[in-house]
Amino acid sequence: MLPLLELVRDDLAVVEEELYRVLKSPNHLLMETSSYLFRAGGKRLRPAFALLAARFHDYKLEKVLPVALSLELAHMATLVHDDVVDGAGLRRGKPSVKALWGNRISTHTGDYLLAQAMLILLSNYQNPIFVQVLAHTCEKMCEGELIQFDSTNRPDLRDYLRRIRCKTALLIQASCQLGAVSTGAPPAAYQTLGRFGYCLGMAFQITDDVLDMVADPEQLGKPVGGDLRQGIITLPVIFALAQSREKERLSALVAKEHKTEDDVREAIRLTKECGGIDMALQVAGKYLDRAQACLGTLPDIPARRSLSALAEFIRGREY
Amino acid sequence: MLPLLELVRDDLAVVEEELYRVLKSPNHLLMETSSYLFRAGGKRLRPAFALLAARFHDYKLEKVLPVALSLELAHMATLVHDDVVDGAGLRRGKPSVKALWGNRISTHTGDYLLAQAMLILLSNYQNPIFVQVLAHTCEKMCEGELIQFDSTNRPDLRDYLRRIRCKTALLIQASCQLGAVSTGAPPAAYQTLGRFGYCLGMAFQITDDVLDMVADPEQLGKPVGGDLRQGIITLPVIFALAQSREKERLSALVAKEHKTEDDVREAIRLTKECGGIDMALQVAGKYLDRAQACLGTLPDIPARRSLSALAEFIRGREY
Repeated sequence: MLPLLELVRDDLAVVEEELYRVLKSPNHLLMETSSYLFRAGGKRLRPAFALLAARFHDYKLEKVLPVALSLELAHMATLVHDDVVDGAGLRRGKPSVKALWGNRISTHTGDYLLAQAMLILLSNYQNPIFVQVLAHTCEKMCEGELIQFDSTNRPDLRDYLRRIRCKTALLIQASCQLGAVSTGAPPAAYQTLGRFGYCLGMAFQITDDVLDMVADPEQLGKPVGGDLRQGIITLPVIFALAQSREKERLSALVAKEHKTEDDVREAIRLTKECGGIDMALQVAGKYLDRAQACLGTLPDIPARRSLSALAEFIRGREY
Repeated sequence: MLPLLELVRDDLAVVEEELYRVLKSPNHLLMETSSYLFRAGGKRLRPAFALLAARFHDYKLEKVLPVALSLELAHMATLVHDDVVDGAGLRRGKPSVKALWGNRISTHTGDYLLAQAMLILLSNYQNPIFVQVLAHTCEKMCEGELIQFDSTNRPDLRDYLRRIRCKTALLIQASCQLGAVSTGAPPAAYQTLGRFGYCLGMAFQITDDVLDMVADPEQLGKPVGGDLRQGIITLPVIFALAQSREKERLSALVAKEHKTEDDVREAIRLTKECGGIDMALQVAGKYLDRAQACLGTLPDIPARRSLSALAEFIRGREY
């Protein structure tokens, strides 16, 4: 667990226990795949955001717990489905569900987790906003993935921003927003927290995309350049294609359907040399500034300081 | 359209128009895959059941339309995901979305359609029962598919019944039940209609599984013996394995991981010879009797006669 999450440590432990309980299924295959996912771990960032956002009003763990569980299950569902999609072999440094069980079982495991996420919200809250926000977020997440295929090997800043909004930012936005709604926060507060989550999510994904090119592979848990290899063009490359002195060469490398390891390495080098990485990190920084500005309008409670520290952690993130 | 559906023909035409409108998406890939699915057609049985069940109370098309749309979208979503699962090349006699666009896009198209199905219910009904029933049905449908993998090449009557319940019967049950709820039918009526849908759905799937072995391949739109080839053991084979005089031979054929066309033909022949097909059809008949008994408790209106005729159609179904 990130040390920044000290404030919600005990509550996150409860989330973890509940997650384990929810993932126990009567079907033994589901039991295997989902408890594998559970054991594979993760930062549980979405539950953490929900728990922290819930503290701006009348905080009680049992009020926000269903949101925290539901959003982590929805997140797991997208990871499993993304593995079908990417043909990815590694997830969090371990073999993916897809690699161990195949596309068939992954698809249904993802569907199951998503249905669970919906059912938890439906059976715990009367207010339809919870399941509405989750269903809307899921719809957008699919759209985001499909934009990715539409724009494979094609650099476009607008597509990129739309895609990471759908893929990452909206679910973090939902975590913050619904966490706040669950404890009865008024619209002004939960909308601001949602906006914070959105900006932080955008910065998080841009940083993730940067790290995919420059991180230590061991800390990353997978080889660098994964996006390039899959034909996914991220922000550093979009900037580099606009301003590198060797943009023709970079463009040719990026457009190659089957890239060798040398191609990937060279594309990363060209992107770094012309400042593509730094420019992408600057954009991430701008989103983090906006996230901090949202927090500035909220009461100065310990949860606000934690959220602020999380934003600063993303700014300095190395893995 | 089946001639039996005359009563709801005009309303089904409206469902068709609305389906087309809903499937128009801003994303061009989604637009392509989903309008392809739309054009591929289908019997629109689930909307038809919803429309008919709605007639037992204060019928107005606009009240039941969202249920009809949502359930057809959910059904389409499962078809697309099943194609990922089965690696199927043909669906309704035409290439599947998976065959044309691949697993990646199919997974997300299915997710998108399911999210749409949820959102339609959420934005049209205050009563949470609609989205609860759909989410619960989705959960069970995933479980059903996973039972299938668990029991690949293993004959088990209980598993089989549980699987077809999850895979088929629950969504038809939901169509009838929610169709009735949408026009304000009281619990006794919508539960009876749900029960009717469940029994009819069981019979429908058993008949489908029988036809997979004995139908005219041209009418079926795909080669016979598809289930056997994929290692899926259906009711006729389960009966045959229990009572064929050549059960060892049949068992060996069924257990083969890679079956030749001759293996499949021989397994079908052995299943037929010992009466496995007839016994399966008898079970389907029992479910249809129960479906008719449910109708017997409802008022004798034209919709009841249509539902009853649909049940008899399944009894005599040849494709």
